[in-house]
Amino acid sequence: MPAPSIPAPTFIESASNALVKELRRLAHDSTGYRKAGRVWVEGEHLCSAALARGQRPALAVFSESFWPQAPAEYRQAATKNVVLADALWAAITALESPAHLGFVLELAHGQSLVPDAPTVVLDRLQDAGNVGSIVRSAAAFGFTQIAAVRGTAALWSPKVLRAGMGAHFALRVVEGLDAAALIESLRLPLLVTSSHQGDWLHRATLPWPCAWVLGHEGQGVSPALEQAASQRIRIMQPGGEESLNVAAAAAICLHASAAAAA
Amino acid sequence: MPAPSIPAPTFIESASNALVKELRRLAHDSTGYRKAGRVWVEGEHLCSAALARGQRPALAVFSESFWPQAPAEYRQAATKNVVLADALWAAITALESPAHLGFVLELAHGQSLVPDAPTVVLDRLQDAGNVGSIVRSAAAFGFTQIAAVRGTAALWSPKVLRAGMGAHFALRVVEGLDAAALIESLRLPLLVTSSHQGDWLHRATLPWPCAWVLGHEGQGVSPALEQAASQRIRIMQPGGEESLNVAAAAAICLHASAAAAA
Repeated sequence: MPAPSIPAPTFIESASNALVKELRRLAHDSTGYRKAGRVWVEGEHLCSAALARGQRPALAVFSESFWPQAPAEYRQAATKNVVLADALWAAITALESPAHLGFVLELAHGQSLVPDAPTVVLDRLQDAGNVGSIVRSAAAFGFTQIAAVRGTAALWSPKVLRAGMGAHFALRVVEGLDAAALIESLRLPLLVTSSHQGDWLHRATLPWPCAWVLGHEGQGVSPALEQAASQRIRIMQPGGEESLNVAAAAAICLHASAAAAA
Repeated sequence: MPAPSIPAPTFIESASNALVKELRRLAHDSTGYRKAGRVWVEGEHLCSAALARGQRPALAVFSESFWPQAPAEYRQAATKNVVLADALWAAITALESPAHLGFVLELAHGQSLVPDAPTVVLDRLQDAGNVGSIVRSAAAFGFTQIAAVRGTAALWSPKVLRAGMGAHFALRVVEGLDAAALIESLRLPLLVTSSHQGDWLHRATLPWPCAWVLGHEGQGVSPALEQAASQRIRIMQPGGEESLNVAAAAAICLHASAAAAA
């Protein structure tokens, strides 16, 4: 079997090149991928995670100085290779890593929810770091679907991707959902965390598969989802702090579900 | 009993004022508090958390436009009030909140570890958001002491304080420790998380009180602390992801300890 071929790279050194402009937009505008239908994925960790999950990039991008030393797995990953003058690369990248590489991936359009897949529902979460951390925990604990209600931080934004550490590629990610439609679609027990009522998590019997609903950092879970819940769960906090960080609460709940399913 | 008096404010409008310069340094330099021996705490949430835990600020600072509407609890909190011209305030603040207020708190010097207090050990953690989230979880789950090994992100930096959401004021915080001295000081079972060996957390019997050791985001726990551990603990990850975010792992472990102690 012949070794996979390495597409000859196109070299770009003009800042006004249309592709360079698109890459800048994808890298700096957190919702730019929505209009474009494609997403910018940067750095060795994320790129290798994408390949490991079977992604085939539309485009692989390298800096001029990194290209000669770029590992073959990245050079032969895409149907097209582009090499940017170092100054152009510097204007796109958000990383300090010496591996100057990124992929452009086509996003699947109009994905619908799988009704019975173990799901994490993000109900208008605002902080990109929290969202990325929850995506990562979801993948670690055997959940296979993220369902984000409209108003949640953009799931494929560069910040969320970085915090997700590649977990995006292991999950079905559906965003921009209407809460009522989401409740209609999912055929799973819905669990919500509550600070004042419900069963204590460490004593609760948890169903599997299930959908955990994680709510807005300030306002919590919206009334529609709260009412649709089959179980309300409390996390004990003997220290008496007002509330946990939502990504910390999510990790605790998703781990408890994984342990219950084991 | 007479109502507490409100110190007449000193109004400052010069950017070259020595106090303004100090505030800028405290607000923007993550380790500035170490030299100064005092820390800048900003915004209504953090300031009220500090007061609720009995802190008495050396100084309360307000913007000119916020001062007339500032609640009495903040105006009478410190022995000295300072009002800054709005432009000076804008050069100091990192928040977008309309409550333009901050405290300067004196830091206790040369704190030593309490040998048997439930403790979270931070072993060279780098990310301010992770450190703050862990401080917050520690307080929520009944731990009373943070012991940070030298090389850990500055615990009283503005970023860590923000992510900690006031939990700092509920804890004894000791930083800049040498790992060997720390092991010598603590009279508690030391628990470390491990990705490849040890007891599964969801089946383990956990001691209380205890000290959890959380390691560097990339390198994990250092060999000295690893060797001193009385128990190695694994978190199940059926999704097969390489590792959890350290703040997520911390939340899961600290909650499990709280549940075991209940």
